Amino acid sequence: MNAPTSIKEFFESGYRQFLPHVSIDCAIFGFHDNQLKVLLLKMKNVEGWCLPGGFIQWAEPANEAAQRILQERTGISQVFLQQYYTFGEPERNKEPNLKDLIDSLNIEPAEDNWLFRRTISIGYYALVEFSKVTPTVDLLSDECCWWDMHELPKLLFDHDLMIGQALQTLRMQLNFHPVGYNLLPEKFTMPELQKLYETILDRPLDRRNFQKKMLSLRILERMDERKSVGPHKSPYYYRFDKNKYDQALQAGILLGF
Amino acid sequence: MNAPTSIKEFFESGYRQFLPHVSIDCAIFGFHDNQLKVLLLKMKNVEGWCLPGGFIQWAEPANEAAQRILQERTGISQVFLQQYYTFGEPERNKEPNLKDLIDSLNIEPAEDNWLFRRTISIGYYALVEFSKVTPTVDLLSDECCWWDMHELPKLLFDHDLMIGQALQTLRMQLNFHPVGYNLLPEKFTMPELQKLYETILDRPLDRRNFQKKMLSLRILERMDERKSVGPHKSPYYYRFDKNKYDQALQAGILLGF
Repeated sequence: MNAPTSIKEFFESGYRQFLPHVSIDCAIFGFHDNQLKVLLLKMKNVEGWCLPGGFIQWAEPANEAAQRILQERTGISQVFLQQYYTFGEPERNKEPNLKDLIDSLNIEPAEDNWLFRRTISIGYYALVEFSKVTPTVDLLSDECCWWDMHELPKLLFDHDLMIGQALQTLRMQLNFHPVGYNLLPEKFTMPELQKLYETILDRPLDRRNFQKKMLSLRILERMDERKSVGPHKSPYYYRFDKNKYDQALQAGILLGF
Repeated sequence: MNAPTSIKEFFESGYRQFLPHVSIDCAIFGFHDNQLKVLLLKMKNVEGWCLPGGFIQWAEPANEAAQRILQERTGISQVFLQQYYTFGEPERNKEPNLKDLIDSLNIEPAEDNWLFRRTISIGYYALVEFSKVTPTVDLLSDECCWWDMHELPKLLFDHDLMIGQALQTLRMQLNFHPVGYNLLPEKFTMPELQKLYETILDRPLDRRNFQKKMLSLRILERMDERKSVGPHKSPYYYRFDKNKYDQALQAGILLGF
């Protein structure tokens, strides 16, 4: 079955295509200008922003639905996307009641419409390359763009909680899994890699300690080339050894920042 | 509304009390005789065992539903119970089809009965004191007992995957959170504590390193009393400082086993 092409169709018969009572929300983080960003959508005629989300098709695995939603909103696929928590408070999708959105759409869904019923949401997070993303609105929204994590707008539903827990999970994951591939240019210096980690953790790290930990992972390859950044500074370029990087991602290696 | 008192009622009108399409399954681990155990239920007239599980009441938070299910099956409450993964494969609850169970019950549910529809399950895990648990069957089962993790019986649905991922999460959590309170006697020796960690991790740990790490957490209080275990061995007893233990549980402290 094709995706609903109008909001009217989505309200009236979306439950034929999608499992009711369960949704997916994705906290998609990007790294740009040494800032951590999150992708948000502005819902039509509603004061407030929300995470990209959607429903699971009847025959679709939940994890594939999350990948599909990520691709629909960003244009990218095959990125590290991970479940982190399932949000199951009974009233979590009751406010705002979307009356203004519905009035503006000229539709009259019944009070027990499938979209108004209690919905439990599976939270996923991803870390993506900012420059590769083409933010794309969905049926219910009229804006889709990046927001600096330090200057978030008003968020709808329980999405402030969702972003907070996603960030907390991402920071914990830094202790087990390498990050950086697809977020940094192909070759980068150790200070650039450190800046990525510091931005995610939102605190400074000791330079020597950081270098020691990263090298101990054996996922970096030092190049012969140096970057010229000043008369007395010319740090080496590094690149990821993709095979070893993927092995470390699979195995999990304890770093402890 | 009261819980359904018969299987017939559960099949016929359970959806009035419980949210359809979403369930909960709990991997409940216990520690006994230096073995890690998991609590399983034997479904009536079906060849195979499964984790304690259930549905979420319409007005009940998912996390409270998990606590309720834990209490119903074990008699205990207020234990560390944590979400670890949500299982969303479309066919996960299709096999076995429970036909034998249904035939034996003298009920004739329709093919689209709410219990046969696709169900996504939120996985929780808990680590409980073996001796305090009173294993209790549910409506659909006729046995409920502990199984050694090294000798598991045939498991139904995707419950082997569920147990595997729960154990993997528990092992990772050991690196961040203390365990032992409620699992060991009030006073215990360092070798006894180490044995608990080794049992969960299923591998030996270096004695000196373990002691150093545990003491660095500052959650242990050394008592004046020693345990007499042999002519030349008399290890000190320790007990947990509950306040500091709870603080460490909240804060998360990196141990790195």
